[in-house]
Amino acid sequence: MRIILDGMGGDNAPREIVKGAAEISSLIDHEICIVGDEERIKSLLAEFEHDAKRISILHAPDVIGNEDSPVKAVRRKKDSSLVKGMEAVKNGEGDLFISAGNSGAIMSGGVFLLGRIRGIDRPAIGSTYPILGEGGASLLIDSGANAECKPQNLLQFAVMGSIYAKLVLEKRNPSVGLVNMGTEPGKGSAMVKDAFELLERSRNGKANINFIGNVEARDVPIGICDVIVCDGFIGNVILKMTEGVALSISHLIRRKFSEGVLAKAGAALLYNKLGELKKAFDYTEYGGAPILGVKGAAVKLHGSSSAKAVRNGIARAIPFMEHNVVATIENAMAGL
Amino acid sequence: MRIILDGMGGDNAPREIVKGAAEISSLIDHEICIVGDEERIKSLLAEFEHDAKRISILHAPDVIGNEDSPVKAVRRKKDSSLVKGMEAVKNGEGDLFISAGNSGAIMSGGVFLLGRIRGIDRPAIGSTYPILGEGGASLLIDSGANAECKPQNLLQFAVMGSIYAKLVLEKRNPSVGLVNMGTEPGKGSAMVKDAFELLERSRNGKANINFIGNVEARDVPIGICDVIVCDGFIGNVILKMTEGVALSISHLIRRKFSEGVLAKAGAALLYNKLGELKKAFDYTEYGGAPILGVKGAAVKLHGSSSAKAVRNGIARAIPFMEHNVVATIENAMAGL
Repeated sequence: MRIILDGMGGDNAPREIVKGAAEISSLIDHEICIVGDEERIKSLLAEFEHDAKRISILHAPDVIGNEDSPVKAVRRKKDSSLVKGMEAVKNGEGDLFISAGNSGAIMSGGVFLLGRIRGIDRPAIGSTYPILGEGGASLLIDSGANAECKPQNLLQFAVMGSIYAKLVLEKRNPSVGLVNMGTEPGKGSAMVKDAFELLERSRNGKANINFIGNVEARDVPIGICDVIVCDGFIGNVILKMTEGVALSISHLIRRKFSEGVLAKAGAALLYNKLGELKKAFDYTEYGGAPILGVKGAAVKLHGSSSAKAVRNGIARAIPFMEHNVVATIENAMAGL
Repeated sequence: MRIILDGMGGDNAPREIVKGAAEISSLIDHEICIVGDEERIKSLLAEFEHDAKRISILHAPDVIGNEDSPVKAVRRKKDSSLVKGMEAVKNGEGDLFISAGNSGAIMSGGVFLLGRIRGIDRPAIGSTYPILGEGGASLLIDSGANAECKPQNLLQFAVMGSIYAKLVLEKRNPSVGLVNMGTEPGKGSAMVKDAFELLERSRNGKANINFIGNVEARDVPIGICDVIVCDGFIGNVILKMTEGVALSISHLIRRKFSEGVLAKAGAALLYNKLGELKKAFDYTEYGGAPILGVKGAAVKLHGSSSAKAVRNGIARAIPFMEHNVVATIENAMAGL
């Protein structure tokens, strides 16, 4: 199969993107097509060891930057790496699109270029939410695409999230929880109460969702369920709070552990363990965020992705492409 | 002045509540009136050293539990410690009400017994959000009372929060931020966009708010602003995520630091520092949550408050009562 990689998107593009692709090229069974400025990518590729049979370039002279308005840019910048890359997936020249570029533009590109799956009103961004130190992960959906949602959007997120969790995260019968202010039914805003009812009714219906009810934000980090359903505003707050609290705590640890001779000696003995802690917080380990609900597999990587993040992002996105997640969602929605 | 303490509310009532009151009685210049079952409180008081001149008891034979429906309980359980305590504040027999009981009932009691301040459509719960390891704190408002809000509610939260931050948290010109999905104007749901406009316009108006714009959840833990404004659903997610992430990380640290001889030796050397870390996470250090927007000072303590939490809760609530926060909010609203 063929992975289409946006060579120009992200804070460290094209260098780190190309480097990540080069590094993984000899380790996977798929071809990587890097979209972007042909000359620059060619000269960067020459710098890094790679499997030349597995890497090709699709020339795109233009770039969509973070300052570009997503909808306008996708409509006007026809020669951008993002538009050319997504069109390659649409035309069957590629099976997966990956980009560390403008998130809004990737989402808009998904909707306008690939098109929405029939029955999905609002495509969403899923995020792999790691369970600290456990190695496992939940899928958080929507993690920021839709600031405002209706109950049926959340039901659709639950259906798509369950399929993704099953096929990509390898959860046998993915449990689905609705983020709420308390676990009892009847909690929350009118929208969330209605979504609860809808999910509750759909549990044994055609949607076939393993809905476990409301979950509190407190239990998200311990992996209380496999699919965490919420609107994109709440999803954004969950991701950002995780990042902010972890960062504050790690700063505090660093400060405390360098106060005085005893602490420094202790920290020296814990050197490896502190490294493991740091690794547990490292977003580059967890791969990208799938765009779900559009007619093509697309993955958004963190804007500041390093070569390592690109490498992991590609590796972790392969099951999304190999296991026909998009077709499975299309079939599920057709059956509802 | 006179503090009215709900002796029967909370998971550890009445024992820990009475113990906390006894412990602080000789350290403060105010009287504490414990409301609840007179016989039980009397016999508990006999167990703990206390300043008898500073502690009195107001008999209330009934209790509102966590399983009680807040609105019904407040209307029907006239002899409960919560209702009797709030009525004492309403009638001027007390200047501050503190309870670790049913949060919904404390909120309902505030609205139905004390009454809303003129101009405040929705009273809110503020939470002192500690800046990890810094000793400082922000005020998060609303932290869970109102699952659904209108833009003018958020403006009112900003006004009340600014007054509280100034008079209780001692911030000179409290900065106010609106929780949003990004810092740029134009982000978020329709409600949040409208709230942004309203806050922006009010900045130099009569409300006199030091509005700094949108803030991201990521920056809440570092104390990006003094007053964090959001609806109660988002506020609940912010508080619960803080608790959940901190708990997950502290479990991970404990596990990592007990793996192997080296790690154990390192952890032994860091014993004091780990204790300080633990203290930084400890909710009992930060006092209670003020109910703002009602005609009386009321504070909600954590349901599982220990004597130490009760002690700190009382100590930290004193400026709320001494500095006339309620009257200041009334005057500010009258001027708008």
